[in-house]
Formats: sequence, structure tokens, C-alpha cells
Amino acid sequence: MTSIGFIGLGIMGSPMAAHLVDAGHQVTGYDVSAEAVQRLAASGGRGAARVAEAVAGADVVITMLPNHPHVEEVVLGDGGVLANADSGTLLIDMSTIRPETSIAVAEAAAERGIRVLDAPVSGGEAGAKQASLSIMVGGEEADFASARPLFEVVGRTIAHVGPHGAGQVVKAANQLLVGGIYGLVGEAIVLMEASGVDAKTGLDVLAGGLAANRILDLKRETMVAREFTPGFRIDLHHKDMGIALAAARAADVSLPLTGLVAQLVAAGRAMGYGSLDHSALLKVTEQLSGRPTP
Amino acid sequence: MTSIGFIGLGIMGSPMAAHLVDAGHQVTGYDVSAEAVQRLAASGGRGAARVAEAVAGADVVITMLPNHPHVEEVVLGDGGVLANADSGTLLIDMSTIRPETSIAVAEAAAERGIRVLDAPVSGGEAGAKQASLSIMVGGEEADFASARPLFEVVGRTIAHVGPHGAGQVVKAANQLLVGGIYGLVGEAIVLMEASGVDAKTGLDVLAGGLAANRILDLKRETMVAREFTPGFRIDLHHKDMGIALAAARAADVSLPLTGLVAQLVAAGRAMGYGSLDHSALLKVTEQLSGRPTP
Amino acid sequence: MTSIGFIGLGIMGSPMAAHLVDAGHQVTGYDVSAEAVQRLAASGGRGAARVAEAVAGADVVITMLPNHPHVEEVVLGDGGVLANADSGTLLIDMSTIRPETSIAVAEAAAERGIRVLDAPVSGGEAGAKQASLSIMVGGEEADFASARPLFEVVGRTIAHVGPHGAGQVVKAANQLLVGGIYGLVGEAIVLMEASGVDAKTGLDVLAGGLAANRILDLKRETMVAREFTPGFRIDLHHKDMGIALAAARAADVSLPLTGLVAQLVAAGRAMGYGSLDHSALLKVTEQLSGRPTP
Amino acid sequence: MTSIGFIGLGIMGSPMAAHLVDAGHQVTGYDVSAEAVQRLAASGGRGAARVAEAVAGADVVITMLPNHPHVEEVVLGDGGVLANADSGTLLIDMSTIRPETSIAVAEAAAERGIRVLDAPVSGGEAGAKQASLSIMVGGEEADFASARPLFEVVGRTIAHVGPHGAGQVVKAANQLLVGGIYGLVGEAIVLMEASGVDAKTGLDVLAGGLAANRILDLKRETMVAREFTPGFRIDLHHKDMGIALAAARAADVSLPLTGLVAQLVAAGRAMGYGSLDHSALLKVTEQLSGRPTP
Repeated sequence: MTSIGFIGLGIMGSPMAAHLVDAGHQVTGYDVSAEAVQRLAASGGRGAARVAEAVAGADVVITMLPNHPHVEEVVLGDGGVLANADSGTLLIDMSTIRPETSIAVAEAAAERGIRVLDAPVSGGEAGAKQASLSIMVGGEEADFASARPLFEVVGRTIAHVGPHGAGQVVKAANQLLVGGIYGLVGEAIVLMEASGVDAKTGLDVLAGGLAANRILDLKRETMVAREFTPGFRIDLHHKDMGIALAAARAADVSLPLTGLVAQLVAAGRAMGYGSLDHSALLKVTEQLSGRPTP
Repeated sequence: MTSIGFIGLGIMGSPMAAHLVDAGHQVTGYDVSAEAVQRLAASGGRGAARVAEAVAGADVVITMLPNHPHVEEVVLGDGGVLANADSGTLLIDMSTIRPETSIAVAEAAAERGIRVLDAPVSGGEAGAKQASLSIMVGGEEADFASARPLFEVVGRTIAHVGPHGAGQVVKAANQLLVGGIYGLVGEAIVLMEASGVDAKTGLDVLAGGLAANRILDLKRETMVAREFTPGFRIDLHHKDMGIALAAARAADVSLPLTGLVAQLVAAGRAMGYGSLDHSALLKVTEQLSGRPTP
Repeated sequence: MTSIGFIGLGIMGSPMAAHLVDAGHQVTGYDVSAEAVQRLAASGGRGAARVAEAVAGADVVITMLPNHPHVEEVVLGDGGVLANADSGTLLIDMSTIRPETSIAVAEAAAERGIRVLDAPVSGGEAGAKQASLSIMVGGEEADFASARPLFEVVGRTIAHVGPHGAGQVVKAANQLLVGGIYGLVGEAIVLMEASGVDAKTGLDVLAGGLAANRILDLKRETMVAREFTPGFRIDLHHKDMGIALAAARAADVSLPLTGLVAQLVAAGRAMGYGSLDHSALLKVTEQLSGRPTP
Repeated sequence: MTSIGFIGLGIMGSPMAAHLVDAGHQVTGYDVSAEAVQRLAASGGRGAARVAEAVAGADVVITMLPNHPHVEEVVLGDGGVLANADSGTLLIDMSTIRPETSIAVAEAAAERGIRVLDAPVSGGEAGAKQASLSIMVGGEEADFASARPLFEVVGRTIAHVGPHGAGQVVKAANQLLVGGIYGLVGEAIVLMEASGVDAKTGLDVLAGGLAANRILDLKRETMVAREFTPGFRIDLHHKDMGIALAAARAADVSLPLTGLVAQLVAAGRAMGYGSLDHSALLKVTEQLSGRPTP
């Protein structure tokens, strides 16, 4: 049994914390939503009224927060994790944020004897509920080894991919690839439809060859039918494309396709499709081609 | 048994014609290379010295040519297919060319009572040798039905996708998707490597999630190892991106990612990687990021 | 006085032919529109009923046609210029077409002893009327020298820029630059407006610094006011971006910005703005940013 | 005479502070480089050993710093401007930073009764030395009016363009336009050279028409000659493209060309051209087209 402070009980954090409780760990949770805290308490965890209270005496602190400013505040701020955790604590930040923030957090934590892993996930709400997340972990090998049993409670594909920030980089790579493939599939659909081709049949052929990909497998029917219930919202993918560009900048590389995909996702959001599934990137291509569907 | 005139006995056409011979058809072949013609004759087919000779008396004429100017010359030119084929002949053009040429050929053929299918393939040399090609067919449903037994001799995934030119459009969609995914995988690799991430492990994680695709499955190890033996050459993919852009223009659609992918593939060729496998698009991203490998 | 056959009496060709008449040359004109031919005849030229008639006995033949298929038909076709012009004739093609067609025309003409210049223009309808066109000329130096007096009748900036096709290349370079600057100015306007900046004042500042350009000088007020009366239509610029991409392909270069600009111009056309001025590229950026104006 | 605290005496700040001294103002300067401080003291200003000392008793504080983290530290940090300036002070931040930081600074300052203008400049080192900068100012109209006499000491084109952050937005618009035009001119040059066109003559024609722009006027000869002495370094333009993308994100707009230009500038830096003039963006296009020059 591990004593865990869990900060951030939202759509992702809430089911993850519940799985940890079910696995027999002592989980003390905090969230800005008192209701989320009560839900955890009701299901066998403990509720905390402040970050400090969740962190006090914990062996492991897990954070699952929306973006880097929240991580900076919760971890580095007054009354935050570093100010309250014991030396020797392991902080696992499972938020998806810029690699450079993960690195900065790890450096600040090291000064206080606190070890850190960045461990963003993919798989979305469904993955969190089904404990089938992919987890990409950056940090020290020994820390990864000690955290592994906890990761196995919430995830299925679990990999240590490099030093501090490396988990975020792999997550960024995942998101640029997913965003790009959505964009390309959207262009393929618009081209076929505008050319009088049966898109459904055409995509079936594509899915049987070198162009095959999981997005075609899972989403081609809903895309052709223009059903865009999330899933993973364009607004969130927009945030993640910002992280991918920040990662590219930090690594001093040039990623032209990623740069363009980021602007197309931004268009999806700006056009008002932010709360639709990211497959709605198709709607941007439709608009560009003068073929809007209602 | 069908009497087939087969024009274009190159890397693709040669094994395809041989499979048709093996299936019991009478195949009379022509190619600009006398050696290729002799090879067919040696393996049970008949050699022709001119297009007219291959076409004379054939029930079906199959063309497998490099690009649209060759199709225009062989089909529409003096001494070509239309000038020599009997009315009622079925012309199956399996070349990968612009949809608009396929449509123009079908119109010109109709005036002479000749039926046409455009039936480009994917699967490359290996697919041609193993008779496992994907075949995307445009044209009349009845013509597709009558050609189907021949397609089954050389291919595995066979689909009628729409009217004249539709086969070319689906092939174009396939190639823009394949080119784009190569570009995105290349950007993911460069980002990870430049960030100190173990790219091999990172790609394994990506291949287990929503970013999964056949290119990652088949090529991630060779890409990380910088092995670029073709496979399908960048020069050919460059030709195909030109077709995709022409198809977009003909359909009056805007495909920004395709437009950029086309320029990156053009860069691969211009940089001198034209005879490498199209996975060598990775080398363009490397150069752009100041990280060339030998 | 030169005897000139002039083929293509449209918006551009008509005033150009009239200037040549006024300058004392004997101009025999042909166009598919009989009305255009009559207009030339009424203003001192001669009308021809066929290409052959316009070409017969001419020292110089000028063609001013919409695109490369028209040039191929009028120059290379049966009953065309090459079939009817005397050996020694100088053919000046002032159409804007692909460099490779200009080169092919020059080669075909050489076989018949006919000299050719490619001499596309910029400056639009106003430039044609005011005889203030810029003329970019490819071909032999001696031919350029002999044609110069005619160019000076219709143009102001006149330059010999290289061998056959070079005029088209420079025109293509002009159009990619113009299209790209429109796109960039559009992005600057949308960024400023969406940020609460007074775009008019902001553009005034930009026009005073390193970003200064003629498009800002001439069009920033109408762009901010959303007045898009042509001028030069998006449909024509779309054609020209196709030429720029064909020129890049022929030269084996990679032009990523040009590739993207081409798709944005294609979007302008697909969205229904084809008959608006090319400054309406701003409307594409507006749509992408969810800020359409009526 | 105004009492001015001037923080940031680098390549830009140093000559600007000197002009203010020459105009009769009392300038107390601080920089991390003691040498820069001594230089100011030697030329009639006063040197300060800390930010607090420069700010104490000043009517106006001017900051001219490399990027937003420096502004955050110097203005918002312990011992910074806000902690030491008197209520009623006017803070003029002339650094080029993200609009959102300018807005955050203005909000934090307002709580302490300190007024703020964001006033980034363009014109580079030469403009600073010659007191001919363009200055784009965001903030309150009244504050702009009171600062105007100081702006006139160092600049020539001076404009109030909107609320807090608006100066930064206009600067970002300037930089995206300048970066984009360099990229387009580079593509035009590579296309012409690879096509056998005399680029010098071709650019002369372009500079005479609708494609005319100041970059062509000032830089076409050095670009054709491959002389890339800065001027304004690619490294700095890379920083500025990051600001442009951040501004687009904050304004919720989609700027595809800007997104691509940012990656091409990033390529320039990654390829090792960071200390060359930004016109060296040409070298990126050369590399992409397999035509590197030494």
C-alpha cells in the first residue's frame, strides 16, 4: 500500500484516483471542485481541503492538471507541492504540458530532495475509466521502476522513454501524428467526394493498404457521416499542438507539417468547432473547399 | 480464356502479365524494351513488335505505363490502341495518371465503341509479384464486372469506386495519405531524437495508440536505422503527388497539407534522394533541422 | 511598319492590338469572338476569319491566349500558326503559360524555321490599356532586339531574362510573390483586428518599415474596407499558381510557401470568390479564423 | 527634462539611452553588464547598480529587454520595477515580447498605480543609432500623449495602435510579413536560378511591378550575391516568429502562412545560420532544393 496525494480530480483524474483506491492504496485527493473531492471521499479515498493537506505525509504525489500554468502554481507556488512534500517524496506529473516545464519542475524539485517523473497519458476518458491508458514516462530509471506498480493500476502500455521531459515529448509526437492524420484523412475525403467518388468505398480501399491507420479504422464511418461527438475535443488538441510547437522550439528542430497542422486545428477552434471531436478537422477542409455541411 | 493485349512490361507490368499467362489467358505483350517482350514470350505469352500488333484481335487491352504522356501516346496516338482495337474491346488502363486524362481517354474511346476502365494499383513491385495488389477501379459497373476475373488474377483488394477517373482519384488519395504519414512520422522521429528521447521506444508507444498506422508497423525500425532501400522510390512518389495536386485542381478543392507534402517530397528528390525509398522523406526533415545523417 | 498577325483579342489582347495599329503597324487580328475581330477592323486593323488568314504573310505573329491548351491548339494544331506561317516569321507568345510549353513551342517552331519569344506581361487590363505593361521575355537575344520596338508600343518595363521559357519563369515568380504577399497581408489584418488593434493604423506603420510593399500601398485601404472589385481575379491567380507549381516541378525545386499559397488561392476560388480581386484572399483567412464578413 | 530610469543597455538600448541623454533628460541606467552601465555614465547619464536604484524617483521607466522572461523578472520580480517605482510612474516597455505578457504587466502595474505602455520598435541597430525607429504603441491614449516627446527623441514613425498589447501585435504583424516576404523572395530566386533565368534581371522586373517591396529594394543584390552579414539575425527573427504564433493563439485566429514561415525560420536557425541576416532564409530554400551554396 502506498500513501498517495492526488491533485486534479477532473474527467481523467477522477477515475484514475478511483482505480488507485480500488487497488488498495490510500489516496488523499484535492481539486478546486469540492464536489470532485467529495466524490473521491465517498468512494473510499480521503478528501483534502488544500494541496498541502493532500501532500502531507504522502509517499507519492500524482498531479493531473489542465496545462502548464496550473502545474506551475500547484507544484511550484506558495502552498504547493514542493513547499509541503517531504524530502524523498516521488512526484508523478501526469498532466500533458510543455517538456520545458517538466524539466523546470524536476530541477526545482531536486533542490528539495523530491524526485519527479513526467508521465502524460493517451487514451482519453475511456482509457482512464477502463484503466487502459498509454503512459509515456520521463525521468530516472529507478523512479520509473518504483512507480511502475502504480502505472499498472491505471494503464496498459507503459514505457520509460528518456530523461525528464521525455514523456511529454513522446506525447507531443503522438498528438502531432494524430492531428496530422486527421487532417490528411479529411483532405482525402473531400477530394474523393468532390470528384464524385464513393468516399465510403474509397476509404475502405485505403484502409486495406499502406495508408492504413487506426483513425481510418475507428473513425472513417463517423467522419463520412459527419458525426463528431467527442471523444477528444478540438480545443484540447489545439492546446496539445501548442505543446508540440513548444517542444520543437525547445529542441531546435523545424517541423513544417506540424506547424501547418497546428494552424488547421486552430482554425477548427476559431470556426466554432472546439467542442466537437478532433475528427471534425474535416470541417475545416470542407470550408476551405467551399463544401460546408450543416 | 481471354485474349489480352498487354502494353507496358516494366517492373509492374511484367509480373502482372506473367500471372495472366499462368492463369491460362492468351497474352500478347508489347514494350519499348525488346528484352521485356522476349521475356514474356519465353514464359508462355506472345511478343508483339508494335502496339497495333498487341491490340489486334484482343478482347481486352491492358496498359501499364509510367505517366499520362505515355498513356496519351499509346492510347490516343497514331498507331495506338484506339486506332487499332476493334469496337467492343475493353481497355483497362492500370497506369497511375491524372484523373482528367483517364476521363479524356474514356471519352475518346467511347467515340470508337471502346469501353474503358481506369484501374490503378497500389502494393508496388512486391504486390505485383505476389499478385496481391490493391486495385481501385473507375468506370461503368458492367465493365468492372466483366473485368473482375482478370483483376482477381493480379490483385487481392479490388473495388469499384465510381465513374471514369474515380480509380485515379482514390489512388491519389492513397498517395497523399501515405506521403503525409511518412512526413509526420519523420517529424516525430526528429523531434524525439533531438529531445534526447529514445526514438525506438517512443515509436513503439505511438504504434500502440491512436497514432498507430501501417507505416509505423512496417518501417519504424528501418527509419530509425536510416535504411532506405526501396520499396517505392521518392521519384515515383513525387510523380504521384503531382497527380494528387492535379486531381485537387480538377475537383476544385483546397488541400493545404497535400500541397505542403508535395513540396517536401519534391525536396527529397531535389536533395538527391529520389532513388531511395519514400520513407527517406525523413532525411528532408533531418536536413531542415540541421541534423543530417550520412 | 511591321505586318503583324495578332491572335487573341480579349481583355488584354484587344487594347494591345489597338496600340499597335495606332503605332502605324499593319495588324491582322483573329479571335474566336467575331465581335472582337470586328472591333479591331473598325479601329484600323484588319479582321481575319481563321488563324491561317491572320498568319499569312505576317512578319510577326503575336498570340495572347488564356492558357497552355489554347496555345498548343493555336500554334501547334492543324490550321495553326506553325502550319501556316512563313519560315523566318517571329512568333511572340504573350500568353501566361507553363515554361515547359513555351520551350516545346520553341522547339517545334525551330523545325520550321520560325523563331519564338515567350513574352508574358504583368500589369493587367489597366496596363494593357495604358500601354504600361511589364514584359518578361525569354528566347534569343537577337530576336528580343528585333521585337523590342513592338514591346515598347505596349509596355514600359521590358526585359530579356533568359532562354526560351525564361519569361514564363519570371512571370511565375512574380505571381507567387504577389499571391504570397496578399496572403501575408491578409494574415496581418486578421491578427490585428482579432486582437483589438486598429488595422488601418497598424498597416500604416507596416507600410513605413521593412514590411513595405506595393500591395500595402495600393490595396490596404480597400482590403480593410472589404472592397474586392477586380482588378485581377482570383480565378486567374489560381491559374497562375498552377503555372508556378509546374515551373517548380520542371526546375526540380521545392517551394513550400508557394505550395501553400497555391492551396489558399484554390480555397478562395472554391469558396466562391473566384471573380473577386485577388486581394480577396483575405476572405480565406477570415473564414479560417471564424471571422467571416458578409 | 524628464527623470528616466532605463533598464537594458544592449545593442538597442544603449544608443537609445544616449539619445535621451543628449536630448537633455536625466537618464539613470541599469544593465547586467557593468560595462554597458559605465558607458552610459561616461556619456552623461548615471549608472545604477540595481534595478531598484534606476527606478527610484524616476518619472518614466523604460525597459528594453531580450524577451518575456526578462521582462517578467525585471518588472514583476522581487527587487523589480513594480516593487520600487513610485505610484504615478509611467513604465514604457520597448522590448519585443508576447502581447499577453504586455497585458499581464499592465494589469499588475495598475494595481500599484503605475501606468504602462508597450512600445516595441522596428528598424534594428541602425534605426536605434540614427534615432529613426518605428515605434508601435499600445496602452492608454493619455499615456501615449505624455510619452510622445520621448518617443520623438528615438524614433521617426510613431503610432498609437490600440490598447495594452496592441503595440506588440503590430510588431508581430510586421515580423510575420517581413519573414514571409524573405521566404517568398528566396523561393523566387531559387526558382529563377534553377530555371536558367538571370535572377538579377528577373528581380529587377519584379521590383518594378505589383510584387515590389522594400526587401527587394534593399536586399536583392546581397541575396543574389549570397552576402548575409546582419542586419537582423535569424535567431532574433526566430524569437519573433514565436511571438507571432503566440499572438495568433491569444487572438484565436488561424494563420497558416505564418505557421509555415515560423518553421522555415526555425530551419534557418537549426541549420546553423542563426547569426546570419534574416535574408539568409534563402539558404533554407536552397537546401530544400538541393542547391546549397558555400
